[in-house]
Amino acid sequence: MTSMKSSNANNTSLVTRVEAGDMRAVARAISKVEDLSKDASELMKQIFPLTGRGLVIGITGAPGAGKSSLVDKLALHYRQQSERVGIVAVDPSSPFSGGAILGDRIRMQQLGLDRNVFIRSMATRGNLGGLARATVDAVSILDAAGYSKIIIETVGVGQDEVEIVKAADISVVVLVPGMGDDIQAIKAGIMEIGDIFVINKADREGVNSTEKELEALLSLAMREDSWHPPIVKTVATEGKGIEELAVAIESYRVAHLQKKAPDGRRRAIARWRILELLRERLVAQTLESDSASEMLDRLAGEVASKQRDPYSAVEEIMRGGQ
Amino acid sequence: MTSMKSSNANNTSLVTRVEAGDMRAVARAISKVEDLSKDASELMKQIFPLTGRGLVIGITGAPGAGKSSLVDKLALHYRQQSERVGIVAVDPSSPFSGGAILGDRIRMQQLGLDRNVFIRSMATRGNLGGLARATVDAVSILDAAGYSKIIIETVGVGQDEVEIVKAADISVVVLVPGMGDDIQAIKAGIMEIGDIFVINKADREGVNSTEKELEALLSLAMREDSWHPPIVKTVATEGKGIEELAVAIESYRVAHLQKKAPDGRRRAIARWRILELLRERLVAQTLESDSASEMLDRLAGEVASKQRDPYSAVEEIMRGGQ
Repeated sequence: MTSMKSSNANNTSLVTRVEAGDMRAVARAISKVEDLSKDASELMKQIFPLTGRGLVIGITGAPGAGKSSLVDKLALHYRQQSERVGIVAVDPSSPFSGGAILGDRIRMQQLGLDRNVFIRSMATRGNLGGLARATVDAVSILDAAGYSKIIIETVGVGQDEVEIVKAADISVVVLVPGMGDDIQAIKAGIMEIGDIFVINKADREGVNSTEKELEALLSLAMREDSWHPPIVKTVATEGKGIEELAVAIESYRVAHLQKKAPDGRRRAIARWRILELLRERLVAQTLESDSASEMLDRLAGEVASKQRDPYSAVEEIMRGGQ
Repeated sequence: MTSMKSSNANNTSLVTRVEAGDMRAVARAISKVEDLSKDASELMKQIFPLTGRGLVIGITGAPGAGKSSLVDKLALHYRQQSERVGIVAVDPSSPFSGGAILGDRIRMQQLGLDRNVFIRSMATRGNLGGLARATVDAVSILDAAGYSKIIIETVGVGQDEVEIVKAADISVVVLVPGMGDDIQAIKAGIMEIGDIFVINKADREGVNSTEKELEALLSLAMREDSWHPPIVKTVATEGKGIEELAVAIESYRVAHLQKKAPDGRRRAIARWRILELLRERLVAQTLESDSASEMLDRLAGEVASKQRDPYSAVEEIMRGGQ
């Protein structure tokens, strides 16, 4: 009881510092939710009521579409308007590669040591899952810390990644010219989640045909709202088109986000957040004892050597090894 | 008890038909594991001992890399050697788009009505998760049905997708020329899981520089085994390089897969499979009653309207609503 009390007290002062915009406190809070440490739950309960002021912009696209440059330039644009910007990059790299940390370092050089820009890469947690849940929690923390624009950058079209982008207030899908038949390929995946489309590297050949194909596809799309997703052409490395992108984002915000009622999208996001967290907590609870974790190791060995199937292994774990 | 017995009996005859290579039985079995229906567990317990004969080849790469063409041509190549081929395409599209079904139809035209090729697209199951688990289960069913080559095709570099490819016996990463700086971008993600690299669309400009960059990156990579991942250049649409790819796959198989002992990779895959299934089963068990599912709806509404935070919502569900 004492330790719980002191953990609460620690969280309270951490939350107070997060709310004041203290970058070290923000970093520490994100680490807590990333590790899903014991007091992450108490922390997030206090963080959640402080959220809802920032605008969350999800930016997605295939590797090589130039998302990082685009995000950095958009962040600089917002900085020139004196906004505080949070960037959460979702890095699907494995724990072995250290990709996330490398990414942070490179970007810190570009955006300098601006104390009003907070950059964090979220790396996969391996078998434990929870990357998507940790990412949306990190966004909530940045929101509570008063970052007025929070950009989530996520690569590709994976299942979790699509959910993360859906959880943003606005989703931006980044394409590059010359994808040709490729637009067809991604159509099913990310086409329908884009509120705004960017054709980056728009100084490359093929930009017009890519734009036409994209327009044709978008004209077929049915949206529940009456929004027609605009196409913005950018050359992010040269800063071209960034202002147009910011204008498109603002137009969407004005058109959609002033509606206060929790619409279907907000409800779906909430449901997804609850399920993600529930999944993680149930597994953690089931495996928290040493004996359960030993059982998992033993069963993994038995399944690997085909002495046993994964289904009966799971049933054994769920019965608590009896 | 009676219904359980008859369900077991039904599964037994279904398993017998799967083992005999009956395509309709295979399709039905995959649907059962995709829906995680009541008798999926009994079915998979009987399927699992029948697996281990087929070679599972995971093929991944960004949208537009030409994976589908490559997979189709590789399947045709194996067919010419009288092998039976199963293809499982993982489609991250949402349930709204019907992308998976469309994909199947297009491909069925290409590979014709060859009864020795089985093609199945696995679509996301929305909030319920379980795509990765359902995919590896489908692979097990194809394996039990005597398909000697089973190809998993998955787009991009998402967390689940990377796990699916890791679960294959051999992982093939597909790139295209002219990705330039993009190779850096994907480095952290899929570079380290590739046992074989394909540069597809190798008739395009930039193929040599892409190859050099890739070689440079691979020379830095540390592998536990002594395997040096080969680079194969293909023009899949014209069938060029497909035989070389098949040779590279066979070389890897000979070098690695004859080792019988469950090595670290097999153990990690088994552990991941158990955890994926455990996650799914625990959530299903927790939410199976009508009252729990109503509680989830109510809590989702409360979180959406910010009356409540996701963490306390999850705690309420875990307490059973008390």
